[in-house]
Order: sequence, then C-alpha cells, then structure tokens
Amino acid sequence: MWLEGDSVRLVDQRLLPNELKILDLRDVEDVARAIETMAVRGAPAIGAAAAYGLALAEIRGADLRRAADRLRRTRPTGQDLFAAIDRVMRAVAGGGTARQAAEALAREDEERCRAIGRHGKRLIKEGMRILTHCNAGALATVDVGTVMAPLRAARDAGRHFFVYASETRPRLQGSRLTAWELGQEGIDHAVVVDGAAGLLLQRGEVDLVLVGADRIAANGDTANKIGTYPKAVLAKAHRVPFYVAAPMTTVDFGARNGRAIPIEERPEDEVLEIAGVRVAPKGTRARNFAFDVTPARYITGFVTDLGILNSNELRRTPRRTDKRTTRS
Amino acid sequence: MWLEGDSVRLVDQRLLPNELKILDLRDVEDVARAIETMAVRGAPAIGAAAAYGLALAEIRGADLRRAADRLRRTRPTGQDLFAAIDRVMRAVAGGGTARQAAEALAREDEERCRAIGRHGKRLIKEGMRILTHCNAGALATVDVGTVMAPLRAARDAGRHFFVYASETRPRLQGSRLTAWELGQEGIDHAVVVDGAAGLLLQRGEVDLVLVGADRIAANGDTANKIGTYPKAVLAKAHRVPFYVAAPMTTVDFGARNGRAIPIEERPEDEVLEIAGVRVAPKGTRARNFAFDVTPARYITGFVTDLGILNSNELRRTPRRTDKRTTRS
Repeated sequence: MWLEGDSVRLVDQRLLPNELKILDLRDVEDVARAIETMAVRGAPAIGAAAAYGLALAEIRGADLRRAADRLRRTRPTGQDLFAAIDRVMRAVAGGGTARQAAEALAREDEERCRAIGRHGKRLIKEGMRILTHCNAGALATVDVGTVMAPLRAARDAGRHFFVYASETRPRLQGSRLTAWELGQEGIDHAVVVDGAAGLLLQRGEVDLVLVGADRIAANGDTANKIGTYPKAVLAKAHRVPFYVAAPMTTVDFGARNGRAIPIEERPEDEVLEIAGVRVAPKGTRARNFAFDVTPARYITGFVTDLGILNSNELRRTPRRTDKRTTRS
Repeated sequence: MWLEGDSVRLVDQRLLPNELKILDLRDVEDVARAIETMAVRGAPAIGAAAAYGLALAEIRGADLRRAADRLRRTRPTGQDLFAAIDRVMRAVAGGGTARQAAEALAREDEERCRAIGRHGKRLIKEGMRILTHCNAGALATVDVGTVMAPLRAARDAGRHFFVYASETRPRLQGSRLTAWELGQEGIDHAVVVDGAAGLLLQRGEVDLVLVGADRIAANGDTANKIGTYPKAVLAKAHRVPFYVAAPMTTVDFGARNGRAIPIEERPEDEVLEIAGVRVAPKGTRARNFAFDVTPARYITGFVTDLGILNSNELRRTPRRTDKRTTRS
C-alpha cells in the first residue's frame, strides 16, 4: 500500500489468489468503499488506508473532518482505523499535513511489524506445527505482517516448521491470502477447514496457535476474526500456547474489556454464497458476525512491537504507547 | 430411499438445495460410488443404502460376499454401514433374503428415528435456541432423521424454537441440507459459519447443542462430522447442554473408546475448491479430515431410540441392542 501522486494504490484482496490487481483509489469515498467491501482488510492495513484516505482528502482540498467521519463509519471493530484517523487529525490540528502523518504512520507500521518479528521469533522452534487463523500477513498490514513477521524471522534464522492455515469462512482469508503468502515465502503449510482445529489439537498435531488481532481491550480481551475464540478454548483444553501477534496500535486502552468492543455484523450473502455461487436454499437467512472476542485468560501472551507481554504487562504500557502512537 | 423394481432410488445430496434429483442405482458398484462421492451420506442412510446394495446384488445374482466387501471399503468411519452389511449377511446365512433384510432394516431405521423424536422431544423447550452441525435430518437416514426427529416432534407439539445451522465445511451439509430441511418443516433458523459457535455461546444465544453421530464407541466417545468436537468443548465452557441424537445402530460396542474409531481423510479438493471454484492458490495442499471424536465427558446425553441415556447407561445396553439389531 502506498501513495503515488494523488492516489492510493493497494492490492485488491478480494481477487487473490486468482488475480493480483492493484487498485487505484482517487478519493476518500474510494478508500471508504475499499475498506467496506474488504478490498483492503486487516486492522493495521485498514488504519493505514484510512490515513492515506485523509491525505487524499487534503490533496483534493476536501473537508478533512467530513472525510474522517466517513472513514470512521466504514467498519466498527478494528482499532487501528480509529487510532490512525485520530493520529492524522491531531497532526493536522498541530500544524502538520495529513500526508506527512499518513506516511509516517505507514512507515512505523512496517517498523512495528519488524519488531514483532524480532520479538516473536523465539516462539517458533525447529519442527513446530503452528495453527493460525484468517490472515495476519503482509496483506493485513502495510507490509511484513504481524503473525507473518515471526514466521519470516524464524525462517530466515534457518528454522523449519509447518503452518496449518485455517481457511476462515466466510471470506476465506486463510485459504486465499495466508496460503498465498506462505507459498510466496516458501513456508510449508496446509489449509484446513475451521472445524478441524479440535481434531488437530486432540491428535497433538499443533504446538502453537498464533493469530492476529483487530482490537485488544485494556485487559487483554482480544477481538479477532470469527472462529478465533473456539481455537483459544481448544488450545487451553489441550495445554497448547495461544499467542496474539499485534502492534500496540491495536490496543484500545479506552475499552476496559471485551464487552466494550463492538462486533461488526456483515451481509448475509457472505455466508449464503461462496465465490458468487448460492449454496443455501432461497429464503434462508444467515447471521454473519465478523469477529469474536477471546477473553484474556485464554491468551498465553501478546507478541507486540514492545516485546512479548502478558495481559498484566499489556495493561501497564498505555501512557508510553499512547505517546509513541500519537507523536508524529 | 427405497427399492423400486430392481434399482435403489435416492436423492442426490450433492445437488441439493439447487436441484432435487433422484438417482437410480442399478448395481452394487453404483451404490458404492454413491456412498464414496457422498451422493448419499449420513451414517444411517449409508447403512440402509448398503443393505439395499446387497439386495441389488442378490437380484442380479452377483456374489454377495464380494458385494459386501466392496461396500465395506467405501467409507471407514460411520458405524451403520458395517452394522447393516453384517446384519444382511447374517440374515442370508440364516436362510433369509437380502431384500427382506434390507427392507426390514430400512423400516426399523425409520421407527428408530421416530422413537428418538418421542424421547428427545422433552429437550426442546419453548423459546429455545438450538445449535446443530452438519445434517442429521431425513436425508441422513431412511426418513425422519435423528436430530430432526425431536425438532419435528417439538414443533408438532406446538413449541416455538430457533435453530442455528452451522454451515459445516467442507461439504456444507448445514447450509445446503439442514437449512433446506428446516425450511421444508417451517422451523425458524439461520445459517452461521462453523467458527461462529464460540461467539453465539459466549453471548448466551444458544440453550442446547444437538448433533448426530457417525460412530459411538462403547464408552460414549462420539465420532461425528469435523467441527463437532469444538462445539462440545465450547458448550462445556459455557455450561450449555450438548446432546448426541443417534439410533443404537450407530453404537460400536466393539470399539472401547474413540481411539478405536478410524477417521476418514477425504480428497484435498473438497477444501481447496468450493462449488467447483478453486479458492486456494495453485500448489497449496490441504488436510481434509471428515470427522472428529468428541470424548464422552463432553456429552450431556445420548438421545437414542431406547431413551435419553448417559454414557454409563449407553455402556450397559449392548446385549439387548445387539439382539434387537441383528434379529431380522
């Protein structure tokens, strides 16, 4: 994702892996729609896209506050969206430009991911079998990825390991995006259906569960793609460590716990149709919750840009992080 | 499913809900392939189809033992397949015909389902929200269904309730078949992705989990469609009752526990393609386990044709059941 002239360019994640198409977003409305339709997705990537969207508004001389309001209404759950918009707006209020703030944010996002990789590398041991869910790779961030960063770092350190990519219905980010990124990185992997986590853990075929996050409450409760919480409960039942990889920008210190995190409900057709083919009978309804919340007690640790923290350590870092995040 | 002249006729479950096509199976090989490709599926339905397959072999003067061997090799996990073949072969050895034995088995299967409905009806209370997985309806049996039987009985008793049908990847029996049957019965329902069970239970939106079974070990460990075990673990974590509805023919008293149940692994393409559309990148591999095993300690009770039993009661019924099953 990058700003080129007066447009934002990013990979259309809806078309992968069958087609690698770069979208050319010209104004805030383009960016807002790209977020809503999940052409761009992943909490940090959405944050960066929104920041760039404000830069586009500035370039076009549009009203920045209205642009910010439009972007805030795109998706409710991911924290980075709101943090990024606030940061850019504060920078502008402080006399800076949206463009500079957005570019600094994107640069930092990449740095944070690299730091997650450095800290998280030690979790990935030779011969391990790792279960992940959804996509928390380069596509979900500006670059590098959150879950993908420790995997890349461990691979670069010469370690061999195997990744089970849970396919992640309804949008199939696991089979479409994570499998694609793992293939590009030359990391051994296989796709499994979301329901297979229980069997894999029961058979002792998983040594570590590693997932991303869309919003982490101050107490460590973590919203992530629907289907994450079942994996956490199963991991605990089988005494397998369950880690969340995310930059500190994903922590919402204003949310006391998971109950304060709004859970997006998306269109029913995402469940009732697959690849444009209707699978359920006509007239059938669906409930399509995009995220669930994993209580902090199920989470062994958070792999952040500040190190691997437990939920108590996470709670104690707000001031420092908030400063880091907002200073630009 | 029924025998008509010299062919077995059954609904092609691969085409539902878009097309209601009746297959016309002419010999054992047709029946074996219908089972392998899941044109017919559901443990009791597979058992009845195999019994009818032996009747076809008899009609055509084919070698019955070879026919039985062919049918036994179709799918490894479901218990009714083996129980049905054994029953028909014993009837023939005792001087009866395969056709009579198959027709008696089909008739009894339907009676067992009705008994499951009578016993299970009391679990379904006014206003309840019930989560199910896969399809354990009329399609999965000769008629009536296992999970569907108590639902129908409760509906007939005037009770109102709501069913969450977990879509059940990879073959989508939940969204394709269960939603179709619930629609036909006029029972309120919605489809959810398999990963949504955690959120629904966490929010208190599920009062009862009710699933079918493919094979129940003597100690109550239960093999059912992949994705069942996670729901059982989640139900326990949220103190929601988890029941298995199955006829006693699904109990394998020769299997001491779940470790003795073979778990079928099916073709990778069922995961990597959906509705004929490739979703994962070329070269990506998948693991496609068709079933998982839920340990008995997660199962509140078994809704059987002999009543609602706990795993101790289930263990104590073998002689009686075995006689019932094999006498024909």
